[in-house]
Amino acid sequence: MVIRRIGMLTGGGDAPGLNAVIRAVVKTAIHDYGWEVIGIRNGFDGLIPPTSAEPLTLDDVRGILPRGGTILGTANRGSPLVRRVDSNGRVELVDQTPEAIATLEELGIDALIVIGGDGTLNIGHELAKKGVPVVGVPKTIDNDLPETDQTFGFDTAVLTATEAIDKLHTTAESHHRVMVLEVMGRDAGWIAIHAGIAGGADVILIPEIPFHVRKVVEKIAERDRAGRHFSIVVVAEGAKAAGSGQFYIQPKDELSLGRLGGIGEWLSDTLAMSSGHESRCTVLGHLQRGGTPTAFDRVLATRYGAAAVRSVAKGMFNHMVALKGNRICEVPLERCVGRIRTVPPDGELVQTARGLGISLGI
Amino acid sequence: MVIRRIGMLTGGGDAPGLNAVIRAVVKTAIHDYGWEVIGIRNGFDGLIPPTSAEPLTLDDVRGILPRGGTILGTANRGSPLVRRVDSNGRVELVDQTPEAIATLEELGIDALIVIGGDGTLNIGHELAKKGVPVVGVPKTIDNDLPETDQTFGFDTAVLTATEAIDKLHTTAESHHRVMVLEVMGRDAGWIAIHAGIAGGADVILIPEIPFHVRKVVEKIAERDRAGRHFSIVVVAEGAKAAGSGQFYIQPKDELSLGRLGGIGEWLSDTLAMSSGHESRCTVLGHLQRGGTPTAFDRVLATRYGAAAVRSVAKGMFNHMVALKGNRICEVPLERCVGRIRTVPPDGELVQTARGLGISLGI
Amino acid sequence: MVIRRIGMLTGGGDAPGLNAVIRAVVKTAIHDYGWEVIGIRNGFDGLIPPTSAEPLTLDDVRGILPRGGTILGTANRGSPLVRRVDSNGRVELVDQTPEAIATLEELGIDALIVIGGDGTLNIGHELAKKGVPVVGVPKTIDNDLPETDQTFGFDTAVLTATEAIDKLHTTAESHHRVMVLEVMGRDAGWIAIHAGIAGGADVILIPEIPFHVRKVVEKIAERDRAGRHFSIVVVAEGAKAAGSGQFYIQPKDELSLGRLGGIGEWLSDTLAMSSGHESRCTVLGHLQRGGTPTAFDRVLATRYGAAAVRSVAKGMFNHMVALKGNRICEVPLERCVGRIRTVPPDGELVQTARGLGISLGI
Amino acid sequence: MVIRRIGMLTGGGDAPGLNAVIRAVVKTAIHDYGWEVIGIRNGFDGLIPPTSAEPLTLDDVRGILPRGGTILGTANRGSPLVRRVDSNGRVELVDQTPEAIATLEELGIDALIVIGGDGTLNIGHELAKKGVPVVGVPKTIDNDLPETDQTFGFDTAVLTATEAIDKLHTTAESHHRVMVLEVMGRDAGWIAIHAGIAGGADVILIPEIPFHVRKVVEKIAERDRAGRHFSIVVVAEGAKAAGSGQFYIQPKDELSLGRLGGIGEWLSDTLAMSSGHESRCTVLGHLQRGGTPTAFDRVLATRYGAAAVRSVAKGMFNHMVALKGNRICEVPLERCVGRIRTVPPDGELVQTARGLGISLGI
Repeated sequence: MVIRRIGMLTGGGDAPGLNAVIRAVVKTAIHDYGWEVIGIRNGFDGLIPPTSAEPLTLDDVRGILPRGGTILGTANRGSPLVRRVDSNGRVELVDQTPEAIATLEELGIDALIVIGGDGTLNIGHELAKKGVPVVGVPKTIDNDLPETDQTFGFDTAVLTATEAIDKLHTTAESHHRVMVLEVMGRDAGWIAIHAGIAGGADVILIPEIPFHVRKVVEKIAERDRAGRHFSIVVVAEGAKAAGSGQFYIQPKDELSLGRLGGIGEWLSDTLAMSSGHESRCTVLGHLQRGGTPTAFDRVLATRYGAAAVRSVAKGMFNHMVALKGNRICEVPLERCVGRIRTVPPDGELVQTARGLGISLGI
Repeated sequence: MVIRRIGMLTGGGDAPGLNAVIRAVVKTAIHDYGWEVIGIRNGFDGLIPPTSAEPLTLDDVRGILPRGGTILGTANRGSPLVRRVDSNGRVELVDQTPEAIATLEELGIDALIVIGGDGTLNIGHELAKKGVPVVGVPKTIDNDLPETDQTFGFDTAVLTATEAIDKLHTTAESHHRVMVLEVMGRDAGWIAIHAGIAGGADVILIPEIPFHVRKVVEKIAERDRAGRHFSIVVVAEGAKAAGSGQFYIQPKDELSLGRLGGIGEWLSDTLAMSSGHESRCTVLGHLQRGGTPTAFDRVLATRYGAAAVRSVAKGMFNHMVALKGNRICEVPLERCVGRIRTVPPDGELVQTARGLGISLGI
Repeated sequence: MVIRRIGMLTGGGDAPGLNAVIRAVVKTAIHDYGWEVIGIRNGFDGLIPPTSAEPLTLDDVRGILPRGGTILGTANRGSPLVRRVDSNGRVELVDQTPEAIATLEELGIDALIVIGGDGTLNIGHELAKKGVPVVGVPKTIDNDLPETDQTFGFDTAVLTATEAIDKLHTTAESHHRVMVLEVMGRDAGWIAIHAGIAGGADVILIPEIPFHVRKVVEKIAERDRAGRHFSIVVVAEGAKAAGSGQFYIQPKDELSLGRLGGIGEWLSDTLAMSSGHESRCTVLGHLQRGGTPTAFDRVLATRYGAAAVRSVAKGMFNHMVALKGNRICEVPLERCVGRIRTVPPDGELVQTARGLGISLGI
Repeated sequence: MVIRRIGMLTGGGDAPGLNAVIRAVVKTAIHDYGWEVIGIRNGFDGLIPPTSAEPLTLDDVRGILPRGGTILGTANRGSPLVRRVDSNGRVELVDQTPEAIATLEELGIDALIVIGGDGTLNIGHELAKKGVPVVGVPKTIDNDLPETDQTFGFDTAVLTATEAIDKLHTTAESHHRVMVLEVMGRDAGWIAIHAGIAGGADVILIPEIPFHVRKVVEKIAERDRAGRHFSIVVVAEGAKAAGSGQFYIQPKDELSLGRLGGIGEWLSDTLAMSSGHESRCTVLGHLQRGGTPTAFDRVLATRYGAAAVRSVAKGMFNHMVALKGNRICEVPLERCVGRIRTVPPDGELVQTARGLGISLGI
């Protein structure tokens, strides 16, 4: 197959480094291979008529390396390839994949680079199975994609969370408070454990290890006895209280009923009642997604973008570029989608944290 | 009066620069005047028996210049000089000022430097009226103290808020969202208007100028028509919706009843329903108080600390050190307490913001 | 005079905040007054045929608020209004002001906003004397312009220098070294003294106060005796060694002859020989000019830009906008040009630094 | 062997993360194993009488996680185990290893953790061969140690260099200049190529690939033709000009003779003469070593410290802890010392940079 024109899109939540990938793809494709690059706007939405796509030139990617977000826009409201239609009172799902493939043909796109997380890569995989030459680029804030040591965006998110912990430390100490920081991580606690270790947290609660509030209170009391009248608690948004005895709760369900905020707020309120300290919660939220990417993420994103172009040139489709150690390699998409990489509850990272005296649940 | 030993305490919420003031007081007092400095712990609490105070040496203040918080600790639960006692079912207020003054005498403290906001300075003023030689140093995150161009801590808070806006921008743009950032400012909107201008916000809502949600929605729509499918809204925690027509609300009261979060969350939910955009809220909270102070705040705090010592040496008591233009001066405490400095609704700052196209309420 | 179209140019070395001024001028002029704005490229060079100028739209200033540099470009090789021509072996100076004025007329520019330091404002003043309606905006990294409390760019430069000192501290301490940091300031030591105080320097050397190397060595020895086996020296590029005895030098001249680097390198070498410590020099150089402006500089630059437009609207020409305390005001250009504002050798800032134990020369 | 007391020292140039390793060692050793930890001061110097060593408690490592430098001090003037003595005019080398070993025995140290680069690890290896139970922790700014994917300190250095490039960009563009940034890397160009890619440099010159000035000039001219009238050149301190034709030079030797500064200054001067642009050089120097470590380096350093303690517990001596992918492992010291890891001139990183249009020499 002769490549003349490639398409590219970004899907899912934004992450620092998306623009660095886009820039690397455009520069490498034009400079090294002489291809044309078509930017598809707003994720897969741009492939469903009315389509939204336009050529990306060197000028278009000038100056975007240090900028957060994605110049292509994104969409993260489920797969646009499955449209919900209401016919006579019944909701039906209509597969729009044929329209998307038709659009790709219409645009004369010989290969498609999709940049995104599990959902986006999954759609890419579906398209690949139907014959579209697809190369994936792994992106998550949460770093929970399998088959790659790291996704871009994660390093920046961890730095942002660590800087937040640095800031909370002094307030906690000055006011003898418990400060709770809720970070991203619905299913995997990578941000929480990395930022917690980097920031010197006293308690780290992650989805992979259920926790007893009682244990957290004990840790705070232990610090009190050592003359440390404050504590820093980092909690991933998906952390779960263990189900037993007095402290049994199902935070997610109860909270969503009463709109009482997330696990961080709940935990902060609970600790305020049970620890004898004032407690405050900070929800880091979207601050973790934004901002200029770290040098690490810029390099990783750039290497991914360039590698994706080389994969296209080699005809290595239905694969995702990945980092293994210091090397960039390719992994079949089917091994990457549909499962997540979580923090091993007995692994070295958790062991290291516990060795430092950090309380980690159960 | 011959000065041999001075006391120092920090009160109210912590602010970046407190340690810089402490360091400057200790270094200047010891180096230039040969005085002893007693650090009183946890604000005025440290003066009520059991007292908590100890000498501060040059070693104690080593390395604290760039650190947030206060090594003296603070307390912000109302004046410790007014104790609430319950005698036979009735709550009585007992003035503990005599105990505090007795403590000062016991410690042999010839003059007292109090570092804090309106509440702390007010107590200092009360002590001064009873004969204690007091010098005040103005500290607020909110910059709402009168009689000084600026308080330390404010510059750092504005920088933190501005960096947050920078981060939200790219997410807003990538996802075509409305991003609401709630910043500190219960009575004065200085942080909101400064950070909003510095961060390029589209809407800034401050306590001084009531707002109609309808106007905010119109601004978002106006941007949509100009092809800008996202908006950044900065809202001070004390901002109030105007009371008329369809959007009449009393957010504070309703919200506090239902524990529904603050004005930011409420506004974000409301805009999500009425603007046709997804909306997300970030509450910056305690992140504004923490972290290493900016160079500006370190210099200002250092100048304040040194000036406070010189005020003691001159016998200029019952005054607060202040910044006027580039000069450090002294202002009688009675002119500083009991009132706040707010953003003039028709002033140059608001006019400048409006001239940029920023929507500011009413 | 009815204003329909205004011109704007930036001159001299670049400074963080230039783009913020440009953006504020364009937005305010278009939004509040409906004027057209012409951007003149590369300082006054753009007014000399072949001219380089083009309209600036709202789109042109989108996203430039947090960016360093100037989208208009600048030139700092002396006044372009004085051309050097060589006729028959003799060099003659030709005043090109008439060409510049003709260009302004040709472009239909009703008023000119010039953003720059002493040199740029001086040319603006000359044009104003010849009838061009000029408004100046003060910009220097060095903060040495008279008649304004602060110029934009300075706060960012001080922060950059302070962060550098923060970094050098740990190296100095770990290696028992003297670390010398050379910062900008040919005639005025504002950056050096502000960053030195903010960074906790041990020695600060500024052009306004000559220094003896012997005194610096003594300070280092004094710290050694106190168990502090490292020292941080901040030196402005224009600092001068005092002319007496063993240490008499004229660094500037000698150094420029031999291309031996600046005062920082010289001082570091000298201290390495005389203090018994290893010494290292870091020249901060252009890092002080670049980067995203601080929130402070963004707000100040924005206020200046908006105020300059209002000055044009009021017909207040041949003036410079200025900051006095918290207020923006206007000052006649003739009071601003041809002289610089230096650090008062006996002022409060120097006194404060000395009180902290910082050695400041003589 | 029963471990009761372990020693620890830091050697070579300081690097961000040293304190994080120290903290992790102390906390893990005390918390998980109940050992005592002896901190040896100033590298191996502390083992040569008069010895300098003292127990490290949990209190000693409080708050040091985010701080640069090393609380143990370091020495980087060659191996202290080889003393140079002058007897009757001849210089003799005396091996002090026996004294060091005697000191370790005297202190009752059962195992020794040495944190450092090639030189330090080499001495550790020599001690190990003589029976001292040694575990190494890899530290270099340059990331040039073999057998580990990454050393701590490198990520922070790259971020610092990248931020410097970000700052130089705007100045370069505003003034149409060539900006040269000299970064660390005597033998390996890892910092240069990572920061160069992350910062969007136009030219990256590393020790592994000789360069022709002519090629650099051509790249600048190519950019001029594309309307980009500025260029960013990142040069490692050990980069070498290729030896042929007009531009033949041996910068290192000539420069050291005339004290004309390093390769950066030389290149900047040369480009100023040959490219038709003004050029400025910034030497980043010690700024790369200092400052608070990035979250990445804090986590890596912490994992290394904890792993070193576990290695001691396992009796896995004469090994270095290392990172391979996401795993921490151990590598025999003999495979780590005496050789460096350099940037493969034909590897993926160089290929990626070239694909982006970056000029890389030869």
